[in-house]
Formats: sequence, C-alpha cells, structure tokens
Amino acid sequence: MSDAADGLITQTEAPAGRRGRDARRAARVQRSGVSIPYISRNLPLTEVLSEEAMQIIEHNAETLLEEIGIEFRDYPRALELLRGAGADIKGERVRFPRGLARKLISTAPSQYIQHARNPERNVQIGGNATVFAPNYGSPFVHDLDKGRRYGTIEDFRNFVKMAYANPYIHHSGGTVCEPVDLPVNKRHLEMVYAHMRLSDKPFMGSVTAPERAQDTVDMAKILFGADYIQQNTVCTSLINANSPMVWDNTMLGAADIYAQNNQACIITPFILSGAMSPVTVAGTLTQVLAEVLAGISFLQLVRPGAPAIFGTFVSTLSMQSGAPTFGTPEAALAIYGAGQLARRMKLPFRSGGSLCASKIPDAQAAYESAQTLLPTLFGGANFVLHAAGWLEGGLSASYEKFVMDFDQLGAMHVLAKGVDMSENGQAMDAFHQVEPGGHFLGCAHTQANFETAFYRSTVADNNSVEQWEAEGRQDAAQRANKIWKKTLADYEAPAIDPGIDEALRDFIERKKASMPDASY
Amino acid sequence: MSDAADGLITQTEAPAGRRGRDARRAARVQRSGVSIPYISRNLPLTEVLSEEAMQIIEHNAETLLEEIGIEFRDYPRALELLRGAGADIKGERVRFPRGLARKLISTAPSQYIQHARNPERNVQIGGNATVFAPNYGSPFVHDLDKGRRYGTIEDFRNFVKMAYANPYIHHSGGTVCEPVDLPVNKRHLEMVYAHMRLSDKPFMGSVTAPERAQDTVDMAKILFGADYIQQNTVCTSLINANSPMVWDNTMLGAADIYAQNNQACIITPFILSGAMSPVTVAGTLTQVLAEVLAGISFLQLVRPGAPAIFGTFVSTLSMQSGAPTFGTPEAALAIYGAGQLARRMKLPFRSGGSLCASKIPDAQAAYESAQTLLPTLFGGANFVLHAAGWLEGGLSASYEKFVMDFDQLGAMHVLAKGVDMSENGQAMDAFHQVEPGGHFLGCAHTQANFETAFYRSTVADNNSVEQWEAEGRQDAAQRANKIWKKTLADYEAPAIDPGIDEALRDFIERKKASMPDASY
Repeated sequence: MSDAADGLITQTEAPAGRRGRDARRAARVQRSGVSIPYISRNLPLTEVLSEEAMQIIEHNAETLLEEIGIEFRDYPRALELLRGAGADIKGERVRFPRGLARKLISTAPSQYIQHARNPERNVQIGGNATVFAPNYGSPFVHDLDKGRRYGTIEDFRNFVKMAYANPYIHHSGGTVCEPVDLPVNKRHLEMVYAHMRLSDKPFMGSVTAPERAQDTVDMAKILFGADYIQQNTVCTSLINANSPMVWDNTMLGAADIYAQNNQACIITPFILSGAMSPVTVAGTLTQVLAEVLAGISFLQLVRPGAPAIFGTFVSTLSMQSGAPTFGTPEAALAIYGAGQLARRMKLPFRSGGSLCASKIPDAQAAYESAQTLLPTLFGGANFVLHAAGWLEGGLSASYEKFVMDFDQLGAMHVLAKGVDMSENGQAMDAFHQVEPGGHFLGCAHTQANFETAFYRSTVADNNSVEQWEAEGRQDAAQRANKIWKKTLADYEAPAIDPGIDEALRDFIERKKASMPDASY
Repeated sequence: MSDAADGLITQTEAPAGRRGRDARRAARVQRSGVSIPYISRNLPLTEVLSEEAMQIIEHNAETLLEEIGIEFRDYPRALELLRGAGADIKGERVRFPRGLARKLISTAPSQYIQHARNPERNVQIGGNATVFAPNYGSPFVHDLDKGRRYGTIEDFRNFVKMAYANPYIHHSGGTVCEPVDLPVNKRHLEMVYAHMRLSDKPFMGSVTAPERAQDTVDMAKILFGADYIQQNTVCTSLINANSPMVWDNTMLGAADIYAQNNQACIITPFILSGAMSPVTVAGTLTQVLAEVLAGISFLQLVRPGAPAIFGTFVSTLSMQSGAPTFGTPEAALAIYGAGQLARRMKLPFRSGGSLCASKIPDAQAAYESAQTLLPTLFGGANFVLHAAGWLEGGLSASYEKFVMDFDQLGAMHVLAKGVDMSENGQAMDAFHQVEPGGHFLGCAHTQANFETAFYRSTVADNNSVEQWEAEGRQDAAQRANKIWKKTLADYEAPAIDPGIDEALRDFIERKKASMPDASY
C-alpha cells in the first residue's frame, strides 16, 4: 500500500488515536475536495463460486485453450513468441497445451503502483485497493441543457477537469469521451495532453494504433523522464479482445508497445453474453478466463513482469430485441465470479463501473448503475473503468450522471471502511449520557463525532417536501446540472513545470505537422 | 422449506433434469404472472463484523440491559412477567441480569411458516428464505398524474391489488398506505379485509391498539378457522420500539395479543442513528440488540415458542439539517451487521427494503433504493418490509415506484440463485458450435436457453436512442405509470368462499356499528 493512502481508509484496524486523526482528515478531505488516493477495502468479498466451481471453470478454460484455441490475427510477432513458448500454432490459431498459459502468466505481478505526476495521487492496482476511473469511449455526450450530441475536445477537457476536482475518483481515465471534432489520427495527442496538463491524477494511454501507444509512451517520457518510466508504471491502458476468442493486431500492437515499456495493460474480454459468449454465466466466465490467459501470456512473453490486469466486461442482451442490457443480475454474477477467477490467477482485477442502458439520468440509469457498482466493490474490482458518467450503454457520457455517480463513489468509500469497533465506535459513553426515551442529538459523543458521523451526499435532497417544493421541485439530475457547472467554473489547473509543458506541446505540434489529417 | 418453493430457486444444487424443468417453470412464471412463493438464497452473505466484533457488541448489549435497562411503559403485565423471570424492576425500568434475555429468547423458533389462505403462497420466515412485502405506514400517496396527496382506502386497495398481481412480491404487507379517509378506530377493519379479500398472499395485522390486534385475530379465525390459527401462524405484525430503550403499552398490548394467539411479531427498534441511537454503527447495533432481546423476552414470557422476528430499521440523519437520510453507507453496514446478530441469536431477521428520501421516483430514489435493497439481500434479511413503493422517507407510497421496485425485486430473484454450474450452465457444447470471431446468437445452446437466459426487466428501456425518441422520450417513471394502470385494469380478485366473505363483512359491520367514529 502506498503511504499516501495508508490510514485514511483502513480505520477499523488502526489504533484509536490514529482513527481520530483519520476521521478528522477524512472530514477535511470532504470539505476541501482533496482527493483520496484510492479505496483500501476492509470488507469481505462476495464469492458466488465454490472452490469446485472454480476448478470446473478453470478446467473448461484450459480445454478451450487446448482444443479450440485463440486466434492472434495479423500479428506474426505474437505467433512467433507463442510458438517459441510451446504453443501449437496452425495459421493464426494458437492452441495452448494444458497448463502452459497459467505458467506463462505467473510472471505478471499480483499488484503494482501506477505513478501519477503528483505522487500523492499514486494508485495501488491490486490487493485490497479499488481505484475508480471515469467513463471510457463514448462517442456522444449528454447534458440537460443541450441534450445528446457528438463529443468534442472541449467536452473531453471538461470531464478531465471534473474528475480532477472530485475527491472520490482516483484516476483520470482515458477516452472519457471521443473528441470527434479532432482528426482520428491526431486526437490521441490532445487527449493524453489533457490528462497530463489538466489533472495530476494517473491516466490511460491511446490504444487505437501501435504508433499512438508509442506517442503516449514518448509523452510520458517527457513528463516523467525516460529512465523513470522504465522503472515505474505511469500508464494503464485498455486492451480489449475481439470476443469470442480473437486478439487482433491493433490491440496486440498497442499492448506490445506498452509491455515493452513496462506500462500496464488491462486485458479485457468485452462480452455481451448471448452474442459474444454463451448465454450462461459459467460459460461466459470460462471464455473470459481463456481469453485473459491468452492475452496476458502474450504480454509476459513480450516482457516478463510487465504489469497486467485481468479485465472483464460482461453484460447481457435482451434476447427479444438484441439490445445490450446493463445492471442485470447475470452481469452482477459475472463480476463476482470473474473477481474470484482473477484472484485465483493472482492478478489485479478490472470490472464493473456505473453501467446502464438508460438514455437519460433517470431512475433506470440509477438502479442499473447501483446494481453494477455494488457488485463491483464487493466483487473486489481493483480498477474500475466507467465508474462515473456512463449512459446509454456507453454511447453517451453524461455531465449530470458524472456528478451523480461521483456521489455514489463517495458513499462506497465509507462502506468499504466497514464498521469502526474502536472505543469511540462502540459509543458506550453515549448510553450513559442518554436516558431511555431521550435523544442522542445533544450528547457529548454525538457532538464529538458530529462532523464525520455520516457520509454527506452532494446530490441527494433530504429536505421536507415543502422546502423541496419551495426550491423548485428539482430532481436529482437538475441538481447535478448545477453542480457540474459550479465545478467547471471553480476549476483551477494543477501547476506544471513550464519547461515540461512546452516540451509536451512541442512534441504534439511536431507530430501533428508530420502527417495529414485522417479519419482512421 | 415449503414444497411450493422447493426447486424453483435453488437451481445450483439441483440435478440437471430438475434444473431444466425449473428454468422452464420460471419462464412460465414470468410470463404468466404466477407468484414465486419466496426467494431461497443460494449466495453467501456479507459479514461486516468479525466474531470478535460480535462478541463485543453482544457484551455491550448485555451491559446496557444490566446497567441501564429498558423501560416497559404503562403495561404492568410486562413488568410482572419480567419480574417473575428474574429481571430487576424499578418503577418501569427493567434491568436484565447478564444472560437472562438471551436465555428467555431461546424458546423463539429460528424459522416459521406464515400460512396464506392460498397454501401456494405460504412463506418461510427464516433460514435462507427472503420474503418481500410492500411499503408500510405512509400517510401520503404519490403518482405522476395527481402528485402527492393523503392516502385513501381506494389507494390502499390499489396497492394490495398491485402486490397481488406481481410475481416478485411474496407478501401483501400491512398498512401499505394509511387510508386517512376512514375513521382511525375503524380503518384497520377495512385494511385487514382488503388483504384477505383482494389478495391471497400472507398479510400483517393491526398494531395501533390491542383491541385492533384482537379484531385482526378474530377475522383470521373467520378466514382460517379458530383451531387452525392456534396451530399455525397466519399473521406477522410490526411491533416498533420507542427507541432508545422504551417499549410502550400500545405496542406491547398488540404484541401480547398476537403472541397469545401464536401469531408472529417483528420486534423492531426503529432508529434514525444520531437521534434515537449513537451516531456510530457499532453503538447503534448494540442498542438494536438490547432492545430486540428485551422485546422478544417479553413475547416468550407471554407464550414460549411464539414466533418472533429480530427486526432492525436503522437509517441515518443529515447532521446538518436533522433530516432523515436513506440508502447511506452507514445504513447498509447496519443492515449487514444486524443480520449477523440476528443469526447469532438464531432468530429470523427483518430489515432493509427499497428505502429513499427522494420526493419523486427519480435517480435519487433509485440509487438510494438499490443501495438499500442489495444490502438487504446480502445481509440475509428474511422478511423485507418496504420492498416496494417507498418514497420520501416513507411519508409517501408511490404508484410508480411500486412498479419500478417490483422490477428490482424480480432481478433479486435471479441474483439470489447464484451461478448455475450444471452441464447446460457450463455451456461447453456452445463453444464447439461457434468459431473464434463468430457469434453465439444462433447456436443450439443459445436457442435452447433463449427463453430463460436473462432476467427481463419490465421497466427498463434498452432500445436505441432513435426508437426511444420515437416512442416519446419517456423516463422510467413515465413507463411505470403506464404499467400500474394496466395492472389495475387487468386485476381480478382471487376467489373466496362466499360464506367466509359474508362472515367477514358481517364481523366488520357489527364492529363498526358498535362504536362511534374516532380520530385516535
């Protein structure tokens, strides 16, 4: 665990004096907007698979790897590496003798630190840490004022600013929305720069082409120093499988660059169960495990010890319309089960988020998001993409939902602490101050714990109906609308060394000038 | 477990042939609207207290009982019974020597069957069963058309009808809303009658006065037979403490009647933490345990073996405004912890629901409700009041939220089943039908599981944004509005023996004629 996070979260185990300080610090954090580096969970996880069930799934995944195999498409280097390691290659189909993939992944670390340019923002990926990152990949954005529209670099920067300003989101993320107003072959430069310049939280790199991954690495060298990044992971990037059972050259090429440079990859089967995997949870988990084992095997052949995350994006389909569905009970079971498999493989785990299919930040959005986020926490996800802002099955990034989800993430920090069993937590002195039938509002124990007693929602309206009516009968989304506007109005960029900033801009402008705009 | 429920829920443990039948039956259930009697959980529970933490809380609760004591107000019979059992009585303050209450409650059953007039609706209370009951006690009702207004007996009947028609709510509940258009001293007669006549699910009795509890018992004798109810529990009623540390004569009087007649009581500290208990979770749980032990001790002295539920209603306060808050992380921890204490006491557990502070069925309502409902399921609640319809801290019963929450309860049924590890669940034949890069939509395994593959939400809109816009851009609450109207339009009352119905009406009319209307 990093020193920065130590103590803030694991209150139950800390000595009482320290807990008091931590509580006061937490209160300061909430008031001041200072970020909490990450959650250190102090709760037991939910395990929906028995040991026998995990054995069956692992056995079946090995059977898939051995009998059906995984295609590594248009990337001969992967085939060479895997052949050299003992895999059976026919065309682009790679079959793994039973046990080979499990052996190959054993060099991947079970946890790592992703460094931020502000060391207080460093995050632990793995173990009992949970790191929240924003929405990723939406071509559209949505707000109550202007509705749904294509995302722009201005929207992108706004989301980066909002994530920077919020204490409960630990990571700046990657493609927080797609800035479609910029040429496809150059937009990654402005995206990576926005994360580096407008935030000092850790971030993700470009994966849409190997040369864009290389640009990310080169910019990271400018920001952190070339030697530094060979020793330290400063970037965690998202590498999705073409499920079922295919890794393609775009993703493999980007992963290759990152692994060579000691940077982390989230190896993620992206699955809508019923289309890209069987309709059952156990079948889907089997495929997830096989695809992850194959992907991380490749990474470890590129560079043994390269940090890698066991990723799982599983949701369901409406079998009537074929539409993707989110926040469903089957998706929750997949998160819990995949978390168990990741821990069995001794790998950090990415899954979950605040997912929903709703087109607007309404009750559907909230039910589905909460039904994803709680399984995310109790499934032991270490890295949580889409923790805030996701709308419409990921097609839109919502300004209001960003704010509403942030608030839910705040609540998760308190939940993850568990129950404080210190003397102050036991509160026996309070009982000696209050008679039966009395009330605790004024007693010394309550007064002493007043500031830190309960999580304060930033979005919820708990007032009387009369006051709520007098204030305009606003729903949660309308209140969130006001909050994001204030957040952006109050935003101040973190300081950066002007020489580094100039070098980054110079790199970007040279890159842009080196090639014509392209839409691919 | 009752035969009626057996097999439907515990699919993981069932042999494969049975599972197939069960899945088909579940699909029929979903299509036909036939109720599922209750959930039999097949998931591990979330335990936030260590064994040591539970020992501390139990020790501290015994200290409260021994040193501070509980007041039993204006009910001399309770004092007599408790004195006879060895308690130390000073005035109305009852102090329990360490261990006495724990010994007294040991005669309470760890689970019981509440019988319904339709035996297929019988519910198991305790063990791995979870029973959902509607909203309870709201003076107001709310719908999108007419807004917020006082509840009437027509609203009451509508909620009973909706609960009857929904397959995922197992219990008809009690005061689903307060019918304020009827005189206070007579409304219980029409409420109990509505549950008996408009539904055939199990129900709750009146607790606002001992004679109204007796009326409930007398009506149950007409419906079930006088001998039958002495042998069988047909009523589960809500007995709230006046926290902190007071039981009053109204509640004790009603509980006394029910226990004498072998009917069940939910002994529930009703606590807004910070006002009615200390501001900490551990302190609140200590008080909950002390108050429950005292209340159930009384019940067991009235009739050893009388069914009793360890109830816990704990939420939090805004320490800034004093307003009650719901769906908070501290409330979730209290549910998990109280569940552990209830199981430690070998008693059925009631807590949770779909609680929220929002005034309307918006995103706040949904986030808070889901943040209560998931802890309810994973906290092992056996009886869940307020599982649907609760709005505005319980002040309003919402027609739309009834429908939206029903849908969430449906999802909980699927989640609670866990992961199907049968051969069909493992889906290995599907992988042999689909090539890497292919899709599973058309394969035989998908086709065979098409109907039952995923939970189908009744409220969620998963269509494209274009289709959603063409259909009027409705939010979840607007869709729910249409659903409840259709439910009421389609409602058909269950059959009842005309002689019994006549006897019930005769009892009610005689009772009404026997006293003037009163507003207390």
